[in-house]
Amino acid sequence: MIAEIITIGDELLRGEIVDSNKARIAERLLLLDLECRYQVSVLDDSADMQDAFRRAAGRSDFVLVSGGLGPTRDDMTTEVLAETFGRETELHEESLAAIEAFFSRVGRRMADVNRKQAYFPTGADVDVLRNPIGTAPGFSLREGRAVFFAMPGVPRELDLMMDEQVLPRIEADFLLQADETGRSPGEAGQRGIERRVVRAVLLRTFGMGESTLEAELMDLARDGEVDLGYRTSFPDNFLRPVARAKTAEEADARIGQVSEAIRARLGPIVYGEGDETMESVVGGLLTTRGLSVATAESCTGGLIAERLTDIPGSSAYFLGGIVAYSNAAKTSLLGVSSDLLEEFGAVSEPVIRAMAEGVRQKFGSDFGVATSGISGPSGGTPEKPVGLVWIAISAAEGAGESGTHSESFVFLIDRKRHRMLTAQVALDWIRRSVLGVELVGPSLMRRRGGGSALSGSSA
Amino acid sequence: MIAEIITIGDELLRGEIVDSNKARIAERLLLLDLECRYQVSVLDDSADMQDAFRRAAGRSDFVLVSGGLGPTRDDMTTEVLAETFGRETELHEESLAAIEAFFSRVGRRMADVNRKQAYFPTGADVDVLRNPIGTAPGFSLREGRAVFFAMPGVPRELDLMMDEQVLPRIEADFLLQADETGRSPGEAGQRGIERRVVRAVLLRTFGMGESTLEAELMDLARDGEVDLGYRTSFPDNFLRPVARAKTAEEADARIGQVSEAIRARLGPIVYGEGDETMESVVGGLLTTRGLSVATAESCTGGLIAERLTDIPGSSAYFLGGIVAYSNAAKTSLLGVSSDLLEEFGAVSEPVIRAMAEGVRQKFGSDFGVATSGISGPSGGTPEKPVGLVWIAISAAEGAGESGTHSESFVFLIDRKRHRMLTAQVALDWIRRSVLGVELVGPSLMRRRGGGSALSGSSA
Repeated sequence: MIAEIITIGDELLRGEIVDSNKARIAERLLLLDLECRYQVSVLDDSADMQDAFRRAAGRSDFVLVSGGLGPTRDDMTTEVLAETFGRETELHEESLAAIEAFFSRVGRRMADVNRKQAYFPTGADVDVLRNPIGTAPGFSLREGRAVFFAMPGVPRELDLMMDEQVLPRIEADFLLQADETGRSPGEAGQRGIERRVVRAVLLRTFGMGESTLEAELMDLARDGEVDLGYRTSFPDNFLRPVARAKTAEEADARIGQVSEAIRARLGPIVYGEGDETMESVVGGLLTTRGLSVATAESCTGGLIAERLTDIPGSSAYFLGGIVAYSNAAKTSLLGVSSDLLEEFGAVSEPVIRAMAEGVRQKFGSDFGVATSGISGPSGGTPEKPVGLVWIAISAAEGAGESGTHSESFVFLIDRKRHRMLTAQVALDWIRRSVLGVELVGPSLMRRRGGGSALSGSSA
Repeated sequence: MIAEIITIGDELLRGEIVDSNKARIAERLLLLDLECRYQVSVLDDSADMQDAFRRAAGRSDFVLVSGGLGPTRDDMTTEVLAETFGRETELHEESLAAIEAFFSRVGRRMADVNRKQAYFPTGADVDVLRNPIGTAPGFSLREGRAVFFAMPGVPRELDLMMDEQVLPRIEADFLLQADETGRSPGEAGQRGIERRVVRAVLLRTFGMGESTLEAELMDLARDGEVDLGYRTSFPDNFLRPVARAKTAEEADARIGQVSEAIRARLGPIVYGEGDETMESVVGGLLTTRGLSVATAESCTGGLIAERLTDIPGSSAYFLGGIVAYSNAAKTSLLGVSSDLLEEFGAVSEPVIRAMAEGVRQKFGSDFGVATSGISGPSGGTPEKPVGLVWIAISAAEGAGESGTHSESFVFLIDRKRHRMLTAQVALDWIRRSVLGVELVGPSLMRRRGGGSALSGSSA
């Protein structure tokens, strides 16, 4: 079974926007074990659209079309699909009522141009593709071997329609031997294609390089029943096992087994699953244990605090932060002694430890984390090169192992990624501290100087 | 003249990555006045690739191909292009030497598989598409009316090759009546197509909605010599005038005129151009005037500080920030009286003014900015609904008009965008304060309560 995606719009061909719809449609199709074989984008141009539609009808089983369903003159998907396959368009009263209802819900009157959105090619199936959050209803249309699904180009509307209507519909078409509702029989059954159920999961890892991950997990990926995909999303690496089986139970079991095996192999390197982020995981752990944190940031400039507070409900565990960019701020707000700053400099082990401990005491939090480094592009010296960073976490009695841990790294990457990676290590150390596991840095980055272990207080 | 983009790779068709190459290629082509008419993506599959290449050769003048030039077995662009057009592949000694040199530069030995990257279809032009930052050299190939440009899929390598080699090459082909270097004559000259020079500029605006912008600028866009494009990039709106003329001088003059006209019309709504960001513009202004800033953030949680410190050299003007999420922090670190907090609550005009003034005094900065709001999704009350936010800026004597300005808004958007928009208003107020222009909020958002004008100190 072959799937094809056609996206429509001048703005795509001009590069005014990056077309992310194709990736999101394709990723979803894969969960039905449908490989997307062709992706085509065309201008809002009748001849080009006809050409693309005709070609797709000749080579694909499912054709996912996005864009061109709006009310303006440029929006021609409905008319052109009808014309391509020798059909008329006709008014669908129920859709017109739905569009009018949509406008009255948002407190506006429907403009005349929107009437157009209630017209569909004859023979189209309109009922299946309602649009609860926009004015453009979708529709499906069978032409020869192909089923076209015309959907809006607005990502939020497209996603909802894909998830709630198109994918279940494709699954039904794909599964049924003959459709008892009177629609045409499922293609897969007709052609004797064996149905497979697909399950996938996204495991998020931090701290191990992609090639090391591949080497560690090589045997798990080679059992033939599970594909293991890798994707880098700086500073993380994502693992995506995909399991296929004849039944949902079998596929669920397989994906569960392989996820467990990966977690057992990697331990705390796997920090989350699916939509979880490092900050949401940290937030969840702190909430559950009733612990709190405060931040003292120099080189990360507020990024750690920003990420922690990105999570709704973070006021329960985030007490506050100090962005101590200047030495004066480090002294007056964090209580770092000016002697330490003079003797060792702002980017040094004694100072980072004093910062972490100072902010913890200032806010009365269970944890204090601190960063100080040279993110570049300038500001380095032979002794303290660009890329050098000190990170520390200080834990109060009762918050896991108490004491202060500090370590330095040299991250040879640009300023933006230097800050991102530093913030991720600091957040990961909060997570690891709550879990009571070893505090480690990212293995791929060159480490500079041994870090002092979690022990007592500082120099 | 018709341009077509073909991107190659299983990962694109599976939706594992969003294909941003197409947009970046298309945007660049537009600067040569080349409209990209077709965009196609295919699997690493010989038959599908051949089909796409053959079709492109029949309908397009320039075919920009990205991907499939790597060393692995999946990388087949060179072989398949050769096969499609009945050519052999042959070793290009100079490219082999360049690839070996690349590896020795990064301190590694070239693997045998990389030899493959030094083979090209017979008749290909290899010299024009060197790759200074990767192992995959590109090449161009003329077949009938079409010129193919095969380029690597790695975005950084692709961009560099496009900018430094492909675009100048296309421009030369496009311009020349007959190529005196012995290569084939320029298509445009042959076909008598008039050459036009295109210039574009990106103007960044904040504070005015897209439909208002369009209405304001309608007459400027309609002069026939300039296209005016609009793009929303939350919380900003970008304007992109594109001018076409017979000579570079004329095009430059036109784009200059229209940019000036837009700036005159919109005033400080236009905050920057090209790659400038709000924080880089603020940083530039503060540096030039020798002024400094400190931040007191509640609902934005460090985002303002993070953005200010994202700019290299920000330590010259950013003295530090306090993320005062809890009331205790507002009192102890910012000196907000607990009476004020009790009487008016954290999200109130007296408290926001005390925060802005407190942080300015604490750090001894010229400006202090503060935010306090309810970003949601929960935490609202009938009197202080989700979406409410207070923003304040306090200016010392000598830093423009001194005093404290505060205003409240209700931004009915999700948490993430609520924080983004709030931070943008705060940064914009620093910019406007330095420039000595009126402090206004985004006009499209519902405003709540009148803000007190820039005047004396607070309640």
